[in-house]
Amino acid sequence: MTCIAIKLAYDGSAYSGFAKQKDPQINTIQGKLESALEIIFHTHIDTVCAGRTDAGVHALGQVVSFDAPWQNPDEHMLFKLKTSLDALTPPDIAIKNVWREYDGFSARFSADTREYRYRICIGAKTPLFLQKFAWWHKSELDIDAMREASQYLLGEHDFKSFCKVQSAIDKNTVRTIHKIELLCEEQLGEECLCIRVVGNAFLHSMIRTIVGTLVEVGEGKRQPEWVKDVLDAKNREAAGKNAPACGLVFHEVRFKQANED
Amino acid sequence: MTCIAIKLAYDGSAYSGFAKQKDPQINTIQGKLESALEIIFHTHIDTVCAGRTDAGVHALGQVVSFDAPWQNPDEHMLFKLKTSLDALTPPDIAIKNVWREYDGFSARFSADTREYRYRICIGAKTPLFLQKFAWWHKSELDIDAMREASQYLLGEHDFKSFCKVQSAIDKNTVRTIHKIELLCEEQLGEECLCIRVVGNAFLHSMIRTIVGTLVEVGEGKRQPEWVKDVLDAKNREAAGKNAPACGLVFHEVRFKQANED
Repeated sequence: MTCIAIKLAYDGSAYSGFAKQKDPQINTIQGKLESALEIIFHTHIDTVCAGRTDAGVHALGQVVSFDAPWQNPDEHMLFKLKTSLDALTPPDIAIKNVWREYDGFSARFSADTREYRYRICIGAKTPLFLQKFAWWHKSELDIDAMREASQYLLGEHDFKSFCKVQSAIDKNTVRTIHKIELLCEEQLGEECLCIRVVGNAFLHSMIRTIVGTLVEVGEGKRQPEWVKDVLDAKNREAAGKNAPACGLVFHEVRFKQANED
Repeated sequence: MTCIAIKLAYDGSAYSGFAKQKDPQINTIQGKLESALEIIFHTHIDTVCAGRTDAGVHALGQVVSFDAPWQNPDEHMLFKLKTSLDALTPPDIAIKNVWREYDGFSARFSADTREYRYRICIGAKTPLFLQKFAWWHKSELDIDAMREASQYLLGEHDFKSFCKVQSAIDKNTVRTIHKIELLCEEQLGEECLCIRVVGNAFLHSMIRTIVGTLVEVGEGKRQPEWVKDVLDAKNREAAGKNAPACGLVFHEVRFKQANED
């Protein structure tokens, strides 16, 4: 067996999330990927991903790992695997790269930091080119207040208030956020606000709850310091609503080196 | 009558271009717009645009003008016109702004400069998020050579070599290009090359022929100085192929003031 890693991008609009579900009729990224791998390897392959994205969430830098029934693949075999996977998956999934990893590598457990980006188009004008990839927020937002609020989330905290209720049961909800940046960007000629969050790992719906909470501050409904109260509450009801899935992109994952723990 | 101007954006993928055609079954932006205006004003309205985009070409800052059967519209009437037009046109057309213009204003003839942007994703990796809005050029391009080549196009020239043959017959093909920039951009997290062209006006297919010609230089098939020979030839066959429509966006138009000629 050889550990193989795949970097892939997907437009999540048409999918019920990354993770495959019991009902094979449900459209998932993992389902499409494992079907393609089964055609290629003539056997079922179990995959592990760096970040399980929800329904409608996109990815640019998702990484998936699995054990391939290969002894010592050369560059040509890896290249053929890339092009075969690209051909056997739908056009809204793009295989960016395929490479060999060290034994014991896991896209999930070997990940060191993950980066998500959430885009919001603000204002009355329809963001035409970004409608698939941004949340259109029609009223103005106080970005400085959102920026101030975001800083309370930096560092290690119990993020239970930012986790989907069912997913938080009997689970360690402590995570570390290394960086949150709110940047005004021009994307395809349209203005948008991009919230970049880098952390060690994220809970179910955590980014979308963070964005929904920051937006309540941006709307002036709450003061920036309120975010501290939300953290302290350790209760999902204390936080803002989930921001829509379409604005979210799993941007990148960085891995520990083989010799790190 | 009152002259009204509309700024609109559209995703041109599903359209046979801006200009309406004799057959009303053919899907055009102008057709959709005039149908909506006819519902609103209960009479046919003829529109004029700042730049007739071809099939598949997008716009962010297209401007259309027309005479409305109104005496003295107030802000509320203009706002209602904007929201009605937005509701009566398909979701791939977005009405950005509606305002009153001076008598005699024409989106076509009052335009002073027009800016188009053309995006190319370069390299082996599928540009997933940009596939609707960029040309995917799988092999590398020498951008410095393309930049050098582009400078021969600056200023006033006879651009007959860059004009669709049928459109150049018995027509003045002299135009002025004020600026051409080639910028490496990150759009929605993916790398692309953006070619920004500003000029007084453009011939049929001119931008796409310019891009196709610069790409031949970027591919190393031609030297940068070849662009000068293409201009001198005054023959469409001398230039490169048309670049695909999907990469092109009519970005912006700037108008003369009312007191200019």
